[in-house]
Amino acid sequence: MTERFLEDYEVGQVYGSGDHRVEPGRMTSFAEEFDPQPFHVSDTGAAGTIFGSMAASGWHTAAMTMKLLVGGELKPAGGIVGLGFEELRWPKPVRSGDVLRVESEILDARASRSQLDQGVIKVRVTTRNQSGEAVQIAVGTLLVRRRSAGR
Amino acid sequence: MTERFLEDYEVGQVYGSGDHRVEPGRMTSFAEEFDPQPFHVSDTGAAGTIFGSMAASGWHTAAMTMKLLVGGELKPAGGIVGLGFEELRWPKPVRSGDVLRVESEILDARASRSQLDQGVIKVRVTTRNQSGEAVQIAVGTLLVRRRSAGR
Repeated sequence: MTERFLEDYEVGQVYGSGDHRVEPGRMTSFAEEFDPQPFHVSDTGAAGTIFGSMAASGWHTAAMTMKLLVGGELKPAGGIVGLGFEELRWPKPVRSGDVLRVESEILDARASRSQLDQGVIKVRVTTRNQSGEAVQIAVGTLLVRRRSAGR
Repeated sequence: MTERFLEDYEVGQVYGSGDHRVEPGRMTSFAEEFDPQPFHVSDTGAAGTIFGSMAASGWHTAAMTMKLLVGGELKPAGGIVGLGFEELRWPKPVRSGDVLRVESEILDARASRSQLDQGVIKVRVTTRNQSGEAVQIAVGTLLVRRRSAGR
C-alpha cells in the first residue's frame, strides 16, 4: 500500500482498517499484566460491578486499536507517530468475542512552521464493534512527512 | 491499604506509586503484538528515525502506567474506572531499562447530580522515569464511590 504524505490528507477523508477479534484469554492475560482489576479478568470478577460481565481494559482496547491503525489505510509515510491526544474515551465496554475495526477521519492537516519537511494531521479514530457501536473514540495529532519540493 | 471514597479526595493532593522497570524484551514483544513499527521493535529499526534508538510504544507506556496506578496509593473504592481522558501525551520517549513511577494529582472532585452514591475525580497522572522526566501526562476523569449517608 502506498504511503501517504501531508499533501495527501484532506479534512473529511475517512480511512478504514481490517478487523480484529477480541479473544477472552488475551483479555484476561492483558489485564493480569497491566490492569489487574476483577472486572477485567473474569466474568466472575465482573459480577456485581457496573460492567456485569468481563470487559476489556480500556488500555487493551487502545492497544488493539493501534494494531488496526498500523495495518490500516491511513498509512502515513514514516509510520504512525502520535504527538498526543485531546480526547480518549470508551463509550461502551469491549466484550469477549467482539470484532473490532477502526475508522480514522481527518479533522485537520497543516504544515509545520518550523520544519519544512513535516506537518501534522488531527485525526478522530473511532473503534467500532461488530454491531457498529463505538467502543473507543480518540482524537489525536500525528506527525506526518511532507513531500519534498519538486517531487 | 484502605480504599478511598469521594469524600477523601481533595484538590491538590498527590498520590504516589511503586516503580516498574521497562524490560527491553517486553518492549519488543508488546510492539510486535500491538504497534509493529520498526522504531518500537529494535534499536536497528529505530536508527535513522526521530527516535534514534528503540522507544516504547506509547500504548505500552500507558499500560505500564495503569499497572502502577492500580497498585498505587490512589486506591478508589470499587477500582479504577476511567470515564475518559482530555489529555494524553508522551513528552519524552521511554527507553529500555527505564524505571517508571506515577504521580496522581487531584484536580477536581465532585458528586454526581443523578446518582447519590457516586462522584467523579479529575486526575493528572504524570509518569516519570528514573531521572524525574515526565514520559507521559494524562488528565482523566475517574468514577468514584461516595460514602453512604451516616457512615
